[in-house]
Amino acid sequence: MKTIDVCLSPELIHLYDVSDKTVVVVDILRATSCMVTALAHGVECIIPMASETECERMKSKGYIISGERNGQKIQGFDKGNSPFEYMEEDIRGLKIAFTTTNGTQAIEKSKGAKKILIGSFLNLSAITRYLLMSDDNILIVCAGWKGKLNLEDSLFAGALVDNLRKHIEPDCDAPMIARELYLSAKDDMMKFLSASSHVKRLNRLNIHKDIEFCLTPDLYHVIPILKRDRLVLL
Amino acid sequence: MKTIDVCLSPELIHLYDVSDKTVVVVDILRATSCMVTALAHGVECIIPMASETECERMKSKGYIISGERNGQKIQGFDKGNSPFEYMEEDIRGLKIAFTTTNGTQAIEKSKGAKKILIGSFLNLSAITRYLLMSDDNILIVCAGWKGKLNLEDSLFAGALVDNLRKHIEPDCDAPMIARELYLSAKDDMMKFLSASSHVKRLNRLNIHKDIEFCLTPDLYHVIPILKRDRLVLL
Repeated sequence: MKTIDVCLSPELIHLYDVSDKTVVVVDILRATSCMVTALAHGVECIIPMASETECERMKSKGYIISGERNGQKIQGFDKGNSPFEYMEEDIRGLKIAFTTTNGTQAIEKSKGAKKILIGSFLNLSAITRYLLMSDDNILIVCAGWKGKLNLEDSLFAGALVDNLRKHIEPDCDAPMIARELYLSAKDDMMKFLSASSHVKRLNRLNIHKDIEFCLTPDLYHVIPILKRDRLVLL
Repeated sequence: MKTIDVCLSPELIHLYDVSDKTVVVVDILRATSCMVTALAHGVECIIPMASETECERMKSKGYIISGERNGQKIQGFDKGNSPFEYMEEDIRGLKIAFTTTNGTQAIEKSKGAKKILIGSFLNLSAITRYLLMSDDNILIVCAGWKGKLNLEDSLFAGALVDNLRKHIEPDCDAPMIARELYLSAKDDMMKFLSASSHVKRLNRLNIHKDIEFCLTPDLYHVIPILKRDRLVLL
């Protein structure tokens, strides 16, 4: 039977051998939610970049540059980190270079995995179906907040573990911790999350609407996958 | 208002500034449960040591040497990691050098903290009372299992956060995650833990009795504290 494990912070990723695994990277608020939204709306590809400077350089190569640090759009960049910036008609066919505080760093640290997929509540069922059909062992990598755990990514991990539980065995205690958390929260995730430190931080930025959107399950039936250095649809 | 945070793995401790904090180190199965038991039964002091070789050297200096690796007593050592080895009459007045897979490593990594206390379910109320009276910010450091999170240490962290919640504010999401877990588990922790990877591992070693003992709240009203290199009673 294949196994599933959860790495609740990118700072723990050295404890896992990812080489034989399909890794699902998640940063619910809001990097991976934006990536799923953008690709579902016809963006050609997204290059996730850990470095702000390298991302900025992509502007001269015909890329839209998107970026956020500490929850706010980087000055001089074309777009920030709200999913609503990635669903207009004019997004179709664009190539985007994207850097964020946590999400793109988590992707960077997951390199070396057999496959890297991008997960969010927006494409939860699509990811679930894919993982059920695949033969690989699975590792969910939560982006967290600057190395620390966060509620929303842990909740997503728990939802995915719960979806897969009849077919895929948890490899350690972290999947059980995440699943218990999800079972406590699933009936009203918005209310549950309202106490989270990151949500408090984001609420100060007036993005309540973003948060509600990012918690909506199954709006999109797409699976972003990393091919070499860029995310495209599977 | 002072704050409480939870470091769910010693591999994350670099993310926390411990210099102004009281750190509570916990390794429920079984290092910190043994330490609390031993000191409650009259042991003079315990030197926690990360290295097996250094621990062995203490034998010639008049210490009892205790140690466990991967759940089993180290060959040639006087005692292992079962709390029942630390409650006989002949334990009184002994000095012990102690090394374990996770617990003593977590203490080592917490050095630099303002204070280091040893927590377990066995002395949960004593620790709670002390922390309520202290002015310091608090960090609970879970020993986990070789860097990964485990259920039992996370549960203890959640119990302590729950006890303190009316007086001490959680500093981040980890305390909330731990508390939710504890609230799900508290009515039957033994059953809840039976699915944990570490408990499965320990059950193979026939130490069901140890596990039940380590989950017993408030058997002892003692607080072990690290003074220079040794644990003594506060």
